[in-house]
Amino acid sequence: MVHNGLDLQQDAAGLTAQLVDMPSESGSEQPLADAVETALRALPHLTVDRHGNNVVARTRLGRPERVILAGHIDTVPVADNLPSRLDDSGVLWGCGTSDMKAGVAVQLRIAATVPSPNRDLTFVFYDREEVAAHLNGLGHVADAHPDWLAGDFAVLLEPSDGQVEGGCQGTLRVLLRTTGVRAHSARSWKGENAIHAAAPILDRLASYEPRRKVIDGLEYREGLNAVRIEGGVAGNVIPDACTVTVNYRYAPDIGEEQALAHVREVFAGCGAWELTVDDSSGGALPGLSHPAAKAFIDAVGGEPQPKYGWTDVSRFSALGVPAVNYGPGDPNLAHKRDERVETSKIGHCEERLRAWLTS
Amino acid sequence: MVHNGLDLQQDAAGLTAQLVDMPSESGSEQPLADAVETALRALPHLTVDRHGNNVVARTRLGRPERVILAGHIDTVPVADNLPSRLDDSGVLWGCGTSDMKAGVAVQLRIAATVPSPNRDLTFVFYDREEVAAHLNGLGHVADAHPDWLAGDFAVLLEPSDGQVEGGCQGTLRVLLRTTGVRAHSARSWKGENAIHAAAPILDRLASYEPRRKVIDGLEYREGLNAVRIEGGVAGNVIPDACTVTVNYRYAPDIGEEQALAHVREVFAGCGAWELTVDDSSGGALPGLSHPAAKAFIDAVGGEPQPKYGWTDVSRFSALGVPAVNYGPGDPNLAHKRDERVETSKIGHCEERLRAWLTS
Repeated sequence: MVHNGLDLQQDAAGLTAQLVDMPSESGSEQPLADAVETALRALPHLTVDRHGNNVVARTRLGRPERVILAGHIDTVPVADNLPSRLDDSGVLWGCGTSDMKAGVAVQLRIAATVPSPNRDLTFVFYDREEVAAHLNGLGHVADAHPDWLAGDFAVLLEPSDGQVEGGCQGTLRVLLRTTGVRAHSARSWKGENAIHAAAPILDRLASYEPRRKVIDGLEYREGLNAVRIEGGVAGNVIPDACTVTVNYRYAPDIGEEQALAHVREVFAGCGAWELTVDDSSGGALPGLSHPAAKAFIDAVGGEPQPKYGWTDVSRFSALGVPAVNYGPGDPNLAHKRDERVETSKIGHCEERLRAWLTS
Repeated sequence: MVHNGLDLQQDAAGLTAQLVDMPSESGSEQPLADAVETALRALPHLTVDRHGNNVVARTRLGRPERVILAGHIDTVPVADNLPSRLDDSGVLWGCGTSDMKAGVAVQLRIAATVPSPNRDLTFVFYDREEVAAHLNGLGHVADAHPDWLAGDFAVLLEPSDGQVEGGCQGTLRVLLRTTGVRAHSARSWKGENAIHAAAPILDRLASYEPRRKVIDGLEYREGLNAVRIEGGVAGNVIPDACTVTVNYRYAPDIGEEQALAHVREVFAGCGAWELTVDDSSGGALPGLSHPAAKAFIDAVGGEPQPKYGWTDVSRFSALGVPAVNYGPGDPNLAHKRDERVETSKIGHCEERLRAWLTS
């Protein structure tokens, strides 16, 4: 199997290229999961477990703290951008370079080269992150083996351009439906216009002042927005229904129920509407006040940023593990045909993590 | 041909049944148009012209006034409601009974039995009224032979339940489009929400006080309504466009250009929007102050009502001929599977018209 095996002794850039050249679109991760498992089992200081195509490797050194390095091994569909190509300026091109085989390469390099870290380590490699949330391998491991994910702090090596991105916003999407009475528009006084009834809802949205909340030194800017509106029956009919879809992105100091209560409160007094929750995912606290996190920030440098959008750090948060994103790729290049990564940044990321875990 | 011919000597109820039992869905009017033409050519006091499946018959008595009796000979698709059936209480059931073969029967009876009317008469039988406006036979005759439609006053025998319905509202439909800038909803401050930008438009609509205008004693109630609203890109994207479709139904004392100017004025100050005219059809004045119309109202009795909705009276109005709807059918039964007409009302309508034209 050696000829097919991952070579963890090469530098992180070379390992990234090897990983990229083992295509692993969501749902087709098994060969790569097998290779990762085989490579990790060859390392005597690690205990390796597997659940589906998810591989978890742990040190058992009895350190007072345990930190987790996690990354997904799947990619979006290949877009005529494989095999990988290293150009003259040291940029590696190809599907998954940025999101996130560069990060996975860093995980594997740390696993192979830091046999005696100052904190116990858990490496998590999971599948199907790029598809529907219920398929996500990290979620499946959390459900089946939550003990495998125990720890004090987690780093997700998602592309963050070498910045620490802390925690993440929560997101709530609700449908606000107004109703009316149909009538021919030539006799509009016989009906009640449900679109007109949505006017106070849009007013409230337009005048809403979103909160800015500082947590662990990171400022989370919230947002409350209509993302869709639909109403109307025909060009000559007074409409009897109108639905405004509202998305609330909120700072992680409040939970899902508080977020929903806030939205209900915002629209109180905006006439009659019926609310349906369309989607709800709680946020994640950055957890930067934990000693392991502080040491991490000191080691990697830079100014931590709040994470906007919802990421898998929330899954760790739900397990009681503060988590951040920190990886070498540029998030703006993820999922693009011209996806690429600067190889110098991969090595830099590896060195910073090594510094944190060995100092 | 006599065995297939229309018998104009039977009473209007019997003639209605005969017309109903000659199906004439829009686009299939030729056999009925042929029968109408043949029957009218047999009447020596009338000059008959034909354009497509539209038949026009006129007296040429040199009277100082000329009035037009018009009706369409097509129906909506048959809905398992043919042949016609006369029930014990004198109600005739079947497709087209109300809309509007009862009215056509009255036209034919007047044509056959009033050879020397007190006003010159023009009878118009036209096709394809129940389909797209550009197919309408009355419009085709107006374009090709406007002289055939010259007159001082017109009565359309559309179902109006024996009420005189005067003129009709104009209708204008416009699209008001607001724009913004897309952004991920997690970073909403980087975008501009086009749905929120529509808030002032809905406010203005919700608070709009429609005009009530009395013309020739008829009160026209206007209406300005959103009939559709659409906006949104995805559940996590700040939308960059929102379109509100607004329908203005206006009294016939103003024309199409004034109506459009009014709408622009209503929404001035509601932020930035782009207006596109989606549909525009001018209204029709009731013309009840004309002597022929006054005599008509006296003869048929009852209180004239304003006509809401847009009808073919507008086509006469555009030709300079005031027009009203007056017919025996119930408009609420038009286009229904259980369409029907009270036969006593057909005879009543015929008698009222005869009184007007012979007194």
